[in-house]
Amino acid sequence: MTKVPRKADFPVFRIRRYLEPGPIVLVSSAHGDKRNIMTMGWHTVMEFTPSLVGCIIAGSNYSFELIRKSRECVINLPTTDLTDIVVGVGNTTGADIDKFARFALTPQPAARVKAPLIAECHANFECCLADDALVDKYNFFIFEVVKAHVAPSPKHPETLHYTGDGVFVVSGKAISRRRMFRPELLDP
Amino acid sequence: MTKVPRKADFPVFRIRRYLEPGPIVLVSSAHGDKRNIMTMGWHTVMEFTPSLVGCIIAGSNYSFELIRKSRECVINLPTTDLTDIVVGVGNTTGADIDKFARFALTPQPAARVKAPLIAECHANFECCLADDALVDKYNFFIFEVVKAHVAPSPKHPETLHYTGDGVFVVSGKAISRRRMFRPELLDP
Repeated sequence: MTKVPRKADFPVFRIRRYLEPGPIVLVSSAHGDKRNIMTMGWHTVMEFTPSLVGCIIAGSNYSFELIRKSRECVINLPTTDLTDIVVGVGNTTGADIDKFARFALTPQPAARVKAPLIAECHANFECCLADDALVDKYNFFIFEVVKAHVAPSPKHPETLHYTGDGVFVVSGKAISRRRMFRPELLDP
Repeated sequence: MTKVPRKADFPVFRIRRYLEPGPIVLVSSAHGDKRNIMTMGWHTVMEFTPSLVGCIIAGSNYSFELIRKSRECVINLPTTDLTDIVVGVGNTTGADIDKFARFALTPQPAARVKAPLIAECHANFECCLADDALVDKYNFFIFEVVKAHVAPSPKHPETLHYTGDGVFVVSGKAISRRRMFRPELLDP
């Protein structure tokens, strides 16, 4: 049974703390009576305010149409204790199975979107599609994060970063160089 | 004196191994008699072939005009032994100093672009601007990696991943789940 961390509201303009390091994430979505989860490694923060995240969702994913039609999703941050579930989610398709049931993940109602949060993840970022200008050409979606839920501790959880070929690198050890930074580049 | 790793040609469709984990990178550029280096944490792989990388380069960066006008850059991958140099590059501006000189970094001629490689980095990805459709609206550049140089060892170098507020997390420890992957998702 996987642990379910307690989470608190988190300022959406600070989500770069979790996404800029480039972790593999789980994207949950729903449309009509269908729901799904996919893994995603191709994403980037694009702006602080509005809080924008750009990402590639290939048309071959079962989630593609759910997200394009609902114009919503949740970006969920798994930690290393979910490694085998992340791999399972990435190697199955929602066309065949309900991934929440198969991987014993708990869907939780979101505040601002209909897509469910994944309770077992360290953080959940509720997203609305902000710009689909590059979807047809590149499968590139630009989302606005409209609500963020984060487990307050640990501040820098151990996350998975995909390299391809079935191999992840793990990050988590934090090193600070705050004293070397210009003040205007640090958090207010 | 920082070590200069020996590098070999690397297939451009495999650069996700180094960029998908989301490391902070150093972007070198040149235009006319000017050159510069900037740090970049907001980037994502977008396609295998052509090998596309999307990234945010804010207009406030001295590099912005060099890259927009030359339509080229090099994405260089620093490892943790370059941490203080990465912080130095990110906290200074090319309007005031030549960063190669200031940080004792070695510019090397690239094969396909005029922007210089940074010899001390683990990998160098030569890039040509492929699509500027979202530059005016989001400062989002889509580059094609046209040539890649990578130090063959270690296969998973220790890299820096920026979280904001002067703090990096470090990745490098690799964990394989190849046995759990569908064969078509592994490298051919």
